[in-house]
Formats: sequence, structure tokens, C-alpha cells
Amino acid sequence: MLAGVDIGGTTTQVVLCDPALGVLDRAGVPTPAADGGAAMVGAALDAVRLLLGRTPARLLGVGVGAAGVVDARAGRVLVASDSFRGWAGFGVTAAVEEALGVPAFLDNDVNAFLRGEATAGSAAGAPHVLGMTLGTGVGGALWLDGRLYDGPHGAAGEIGHVPGFGDLPCTCGGRGHLETLASGRAIAARYADRAGVPLTAREVAEAAASGDGDAVGVYAEAGAAVARALLVTAGLLDVTTVVVGGGVSRSWALLEHSIHAALTAEPPVSGHAIGVRPAGLGVDAVAIGAAARVRAELGPVTDRVAGIRQA
Amino acid sequence: MLAGVDIGGTTTQVVLCDPALGVLDRAGVPTPAADGGAAMVGAALDAVRLLLGRTPARLLGVGVGAAGVVDARAGRVLVASDSFRGWAGFGVTAAVEEALGVPAFLDNDVNAFLRGEATAGSAAGAPHVLGMTLGTGVGGALWLDGRLYDGPHGAAGEIGHVPGFGDLPCTCGGRGHLETLASGRAIAARYADRAGVPLTAREVAEAAASGDGDAVGVYAEAGAAVARALLVTAGLLDVTTVVVGGGVSRSWALLEHSIHAALTAEPPVSGHAIGVRPAGLGVDAVAIGAAARVRAELGPVTDRVAGIRQA
Repeated sequence: MLAGVDIGGTTTQVVLCDPALGVLDRAGVPTPAADGGAAMVGAALDAVRLLLGRTPARLLGVGVGAAGVVDARAGRVLVASDSFRGWAGFGVTAAVEEALGVPAFLDNDVNAFLRGEATAGSAAGAPHVLGMTLGTGVGGALWLDGRLYDGPHGAAGEIGHVPGFGDLPCTCGGRGHLETLASGRAIAARYADRAGVPLTAREVAEAAASGDGDAVGVYAEAGAAVARALLVTAGLLDVTTVVVGGGVSRSWALLEHSIHAALTAEPPVSGHAIGVRPAGLGVDAVAIGAAARVRAELGPVTDRVAGIRQA
Repeated sequence: MLAGVDIGGTTTQVVLCDPALGVLDRAGVPTPAADGGAAMVGAALDAVRLLLGRTPARLLGVGVGAAGVVDARAGRVLVASDSFRGWAGFGVTAAVEEALGVPAFLDNDVNAFLRGEATAGSAAGAPHVLGMTLGTGVGGALWLDGRLYDGPHGAAGEIGHVPGFGDLPCTCGGRGHLETLASGRAIAARYADRAGVPLTAREVAEAAASGDGDAVGVYAEAGAAVARALLVTAGLLDVTTVVVGGGVSRSWALLEHSIHAALTAEPPVSGHAIGVRPAGLGVDAVAIGAAARVRAELGPVTDRVAGIRQA
């Protein structure tokens, strides 16, 4: 079995998978984000042990997905957001390996999300994929030639923070980024701009479903910005598939129409159609992707185990 | 020796290189673009034979760079611009191989340009490079992890035709592309918009050098658009080096200040500096890059020859 862990700002999601990445069991526990790295990894390990107790089988390795900038080779968090204390600099894989005695691997959570979706989710089998998470902020990741592409410093795929999306100020200090139009925070802010009423992105979605024109307009604007991001990425990388996750993507019906309208109005310059689809693995996506990293790293071992199971 | 051929709309440039890509000899001849594929390749072959007569040594292979969409595996032109007749569909490498009896390879000219610059030019040795040609139009190509990345359909790198660069109509039918601000055609058009005077891009550069404020402004706007293209590409791919070629890049002094000003005002989100430099191989860049393709394809043979020569 493989374990996958997604350490998010509020919830830590843990899955046990078979070597084919089928989910055998799952658990979600609160992330003690204010209590430091050892506490956060400890909570995740408790959840893994709980699942191991329910499904006894040999654990081959643990994959961890975490928000922020991580050193995926050294298994260490480099930069974490303010909502985490004692997380930047923490050696995640060393702590997991010491506790469980199996190999552990660390990925940025958006990279893990895309690995999950491109391996076992709605983009499974597609060799060239842009992954995009529309959450509080906007994250991005690239899957090229059937593997994750994270660039020379692990920073590739940052579609949320490139210019060309209007002129609104972004949380990163730049202007005119996708995040200013398509993140959950942006949807709330753009609705407040239009309607003068403070709602969450989810409440804006409910208002749109009830026919609120301002709410519909905010989601349409977000969808058009997502389409522009696809066109930029397809023009540069000739990707053929885009998978959109994060909380905002749950309002897919509100985004889908304007995404397709924008792509119809301005088709990709390559002439090749782009498949756009919502994420398929739900709250498990990052954890499954983290488990997929274990499988990729330990390839022959897990393949052999899978072969024995199938035989 | 390796031969490299650049079949451009007006001139065909041919070089003979040693296996280390040092240029031994060169020739430029008019491209008979209206006379069909056989005539164009025939003119290039005549130039290669002329050089072989002057520098007798064993020819190992021929690389060809050509404008338009090419099938780099089949060695065939797929789509050519209106200025070429009988070029789309022409089997370039088959014709060269039949005539000279050595292996031949075909590349898109912008890809060949970047291969040349990243192998033997101003980006030599940099593993992650965006190549950009500011000519009549704007071309782009990507060098990732030390090799050309052209995507699943050979269409990657099209930085000239992604949205996010204002709202002017582009020759491709889209709007707001880099080509509408930074191509030679755009520089002439933007100057005519401002000053009401029809000048070529080169004449606009001369006017700028003489202190013409409109001309300076047009080049500054082009430089700012180039900087935005770098930021988009660096954000998505974490490239660390950009090499800018094409006729407009010869006016580097007019572009450089606004490129650096824009990058200073809005640094890359990765925090990693981007090295921006003009192309270093001049009119030979595409031909040298085409020869570099031969070396890459025949690697062991040319490496052995180079070793013998050095020994």
C-alpha cells in the first residue's frame, strides 16, 4: 500500500491507496497549523496509523503534499504562508521516515494535485496538461510529456501570477494576474465591487444560481480569465488538456459557459482544441497525487507488488 | 563537416561548420520563393556545393531551417506563408538526401534559431531559454532542460500569439498579441498611428536615435511588451534566460532600457532574475542551429570526428 497526505491550511487529508492508486481508506483531521511542523506531521502520522490499523497491509512509502514552496528533492518546506507556524524549514520527509520506517517524499500541493489528476483523475492518460487550482489564491502546475515539469527552481507553472489579466492589484504585489479575477478571494471582492455586498465566493455562487446578475457576471469574468490562461499556456506549451480544481471549480456550471465562449471567440493559435475539465478526485486529489509520487519514485517495487496482486 | 541551411523569404543563408559548430565558410543567395520547392532546395544545394568546393572535407549531414509549420520528424513543410509557392507539402529532407547522399534534417526556423543561440550563441550553455524573433512577425521557441521543447504538435513556443498584450488586432486574427507591439510591422504601424508618417521599423529606429519622441515611444512600448512576454514565460516555465533575435533586435539599445525598466518594476514572481540578451550569431543563427540539429541527431559520429580532430 501507499499512503498519501495533503497538509492543508485547515484540514489534513490522508488516503491509503493500492499500487494502482485506488483509494482503500481515507481520513480528514484538523491541521494544527499554529503548533509547528512536528505537530502538523504528528497529526498526519496519527491519521496514517489509524488507517493502517483499519487496513493491515505492507506500507511501501508515504507521499506528502504541502502548500508553499518546497524542496521536493530534500523533502523540506522552504517558504510557507503566514497561517502556518514553524513550517518553513521543517524537514517533512525525514520526520515521516523516522516515524514509519518507510521512504517518504514531499511535493508542493498544486504539483501533487496535478500529478493525481493526470495519473488517476479527470486528465488520466493525457500527456500534456495544465493544472490550475482556484482556491483562496490561484495555483498552477504543468504535466509535460507524461511527467511533472517544475522547472530549474521548482517554480514552474505559476499561471496565477503572470501579467496580462487586466490591471487589478494582486496579493503578490503585482498587477493584472489571473488570481485577481478567478480566486475565491477575488470572486468575493469583485462581487463586493459590483453589488456593494460582502459575500463569500460560495455565497456568490448561490446568488448566481438564483439569477443575481452581478454574481453571474463575476463568475463569467472569472471563466473568461481562466480561458485566457488556457490560451496563454496552450500557445506557449501546446498543452491539450486543462484540469481545474480548487473550491471555485465546484461552481463549474457557472464557469463553463464563459470558458467555452471565450475559447470559441478566440481559438488556440495552434488550431488544436483544448479539453477543459473540472478536477475528478475531489478532496483526495492532492493526497492521491502524493501517493502517485511514491509510486513514481519506487516504480519497480510497486509495479511488482501490483503484478503479484493482479496475478 | 556539417552544413546548415536557412531558407528565408528573400535570402537563403548556408554555412559549413566543424563539429564544434565553428563556421568554416558561409554564403547567402536569393531564395527563389516563387518558383516552388524544388527550385528553393536546388538553390540551397548549389550554395552548399559551392562551399564544399572551397573547403573539401567529409560532409556528415545537412540541417535545414525553414519558415512556417514543418514536420520535423518527416522532414516536410506543412504550412508556408503566401510569399512561398509550392512549398507547403514539399519533402525537404528527401530532396537533400537524394542530391547529396547524406542525412538531412528539417526544423522550423525559429526553433533552429534558438537551437543555434542556445548551443553556440549568446545563450550557449543555459539550460532553460526562451527564444524570440522580432522580425516582420514575432516567433518564439523554448529550450528546456538543455533541449528544444516543441510540444505534442510541434507548435510550442508561440509567444508572439498569446493574449494579454493590449487589444490591437493581430495578423493571425486574434487581438492583443505581442506581435501587435513588437514586430517590425507593428513598429512601423504604431509609429504611423502616433506620427502620421509611414516609415519602416529601421527608419523608426533611426528617427529614435535622432531624438524623435514618437519613435522612442514606439520602441519603448515594444520593449515593455517584450518584458511582459518574458514575465509570462518565466512565470510558467521558470526559464532563466531569454535571447532576442530578428531584425528589430538590431535596435537593442532602443529596447533594452524599457525591458529592464519593466522587469525592475515587476520582478518575476519566482524571485529569480532573468538574463535578457540580444542574439549573438547574427545572420548565421538559423543555419548554425540547423547544423546543430544534425550534430544532435548524429551525436556519436560527429563527437568521434571532433575527438579525432582534437587528438
